[in-house]
Amino acid sequence: MARAARSIAVVAPANRLAPEAAEKVASLARAAFGEGLRLHFHPQCFLSSGHFAGPDEARSAAFLEVANNPAYHAVWFARGGYGACRLDDALFGKLNRAAHVKDYLGYSDMGVILGRLAREGVGRSAHGPMPTDVSRPGGEAAVLRALAWLVDRDATALEPNWRADAPAYAFNLTVLSNLLGTRSEPNFKGAVLMIEDVAEHLYRTDRAMFHVTSSDNVRRCAGLRLGRFSKIPENDPPFEMTVREIVEFWCQRAGIRFLGEADVGHDADNKIVPFPTSIALTS
Amino acid sequence: MARAARSIAVVAPANRLAPEAAEKVASLARAAFGEGLRLHFHPQCFLSSGHFAGPDEARSAAFLEVANNPAYHAVWFARGGYGACRLDDALFGKLNRAAHVKDYLGYSDMGVILGRLAREGVGRSAHGPMPTDVSRPGGEAAVLRALAWLVDRDATALEPNWRADAPAYAFNLTVLSNLLGTRSEPNFKGAVLMIEDVAEHLYRTDRAMFHVTSSDNVRRCAGLRLGRFSKIPENDPPFEMTVREIVEFWCQRAGIRFLGEADVGHDADNKIVPFPTSIALTS
Repeated sequence: MARAARSIAVVAPANRLAPEAAEKVASLARAAFGEGLRLHFHPQCFLSSGHFAGPDEARSAAFLEVANNPAYHAVWFARGGYGACRLDDALFGKLNRAAHVKDYLGYSDMGVILGRLAREGVGRSAHGPMPTDVSRPGGEAAVLRALAWLVDRDATALEPNWRADAPAYAFNLTVLSNLLGTRSEPNFKGAVLMIEDVAEHLYRTDRAMFHVTSSDNVRRCAGLRLGRFSKIPENDPPFEMTVREIVEFWCQRAGIRFLGEADVGHDADNKIVPFPTSIALTS
Repeated sequence: MARAARSIAVVAPANRLAPEAAEKVASLARAAFGEGLRLHFHPQCFLSSGHFAGPDEARSAAFLEVANNPAYHAVWFARGGYGACRLDDALFGKLNRAAHVKDYLGYSDMGVILGRLAREGVGRSAHGPMPTDVSRPGGEAAVLRALAWLVDRDATALEPNWRADAPAYAFNLTVLSNLLGTRSEPNFKGAVLMIEDVAEHLYRTDRAMFHVTSSDNVRRCAGLRLGRFSKIPENDPPFEMTVREIVEFWCQRAGIRFLGEADVGHDADNKIVPFPTSIALTS
């Protein structure tokens, strides 16, 4: 007997999604999964309000609507940018049973939501590609990887160091730095923490590492892995340290184990890192 | 009887000071204070090592040397930039009695040191102009204001909302965001908190306000005041909120009183905000 179709809703809690990107993703999904996948782009994805995909209220309402709708198996975040932290703080108290047995996938600015859901034990959050990645060179592979995990739990989509029996988190370093001390900060005790970033000066990365590795919570992690740091603007004067040297410096200073590299980043190769969950999810 | 000369040491825990700036400041100081002031630029100010005014070890040693030297009444930080958080963490345990009865003046990246000294009850930290400000348009006034406070405790140098009977802090917002949860985070309970920033995109300011106003410690402050945010790069797309609207939004959301503006910023008008001190200092 054929399995019932998986149903995935796309919303954009930060920046808007280009309609052309949505069309490309829909087309890829049809070709790859046919009737096995129903992909719904919530109209909110295409709203525009200054920096954001619609006003805070519209983004909050769209997320709450799809999270609480039992018709959807997963919420797939359309795009990062900036804005997830502006969602209505009270919506997280309104998430229902349907929201609690759902996947949530995204990265970059979406770390604010993924971290909060993980902290509060809501569903299964995962760090991985988003629909907007279809516009990157080779981005079709990223989108299909995300869908393969959401639809089929394809293990080849997973970050190669991820293990089912060891908790792991992945965050954009700048977003992680900005969520420490907020309600989006999960418990890192015993977990592998992977970091990546894009378009940050090395001095900013160094400063963020000071901040993040000073956290008692982060210091209790099992170790840190370095994802890719891309599109680094020129430092003036030259910083004279690589990202890896920076990260190893701060790990050593903080007594955090440096575990090597991680296959995550703002690029088409970005693999999936499911966060710990306190509940058994339907497969 | 003439008062003994005040003696001030200048060191650079972050970026290097231009020798021409030091010469200008020395010349201004001689003209304004004559024999009443001895200004010593530590040679470390002019070292260069990649981004920094010399290696971490040299910057740490110079700061510890002048802080612990009873011949100096004050340590005046030469310049911000980035690097204060890289100082040897152990040096703060080596500060002696002389360091404990001294003024420390600077701003921007120096907030990391000022916050730590204030937290640990070492001397009197203050947020205010630095020698490098002499290179700004009208910067001579900033330098003379700093010296007037360090030498004469000139009350006209003080930020107009500062009151001797109410604790107050001032920080660069981005630096403050990066020192929360570190050993540089002072106790803000009941204090007026002033913020300023330079060259940050509005989305970054919004995100930093989310982070800072989520802190339980910051939420216990008496209220927040908005200094100047200058040289803001263009936001793409337009952010459609002013800095004041951003700050008021997050204050309201966090239940923090917004108290209005503050006369601090990365400019020649930057006034002095002495931090609370747990000891009586010689005047």
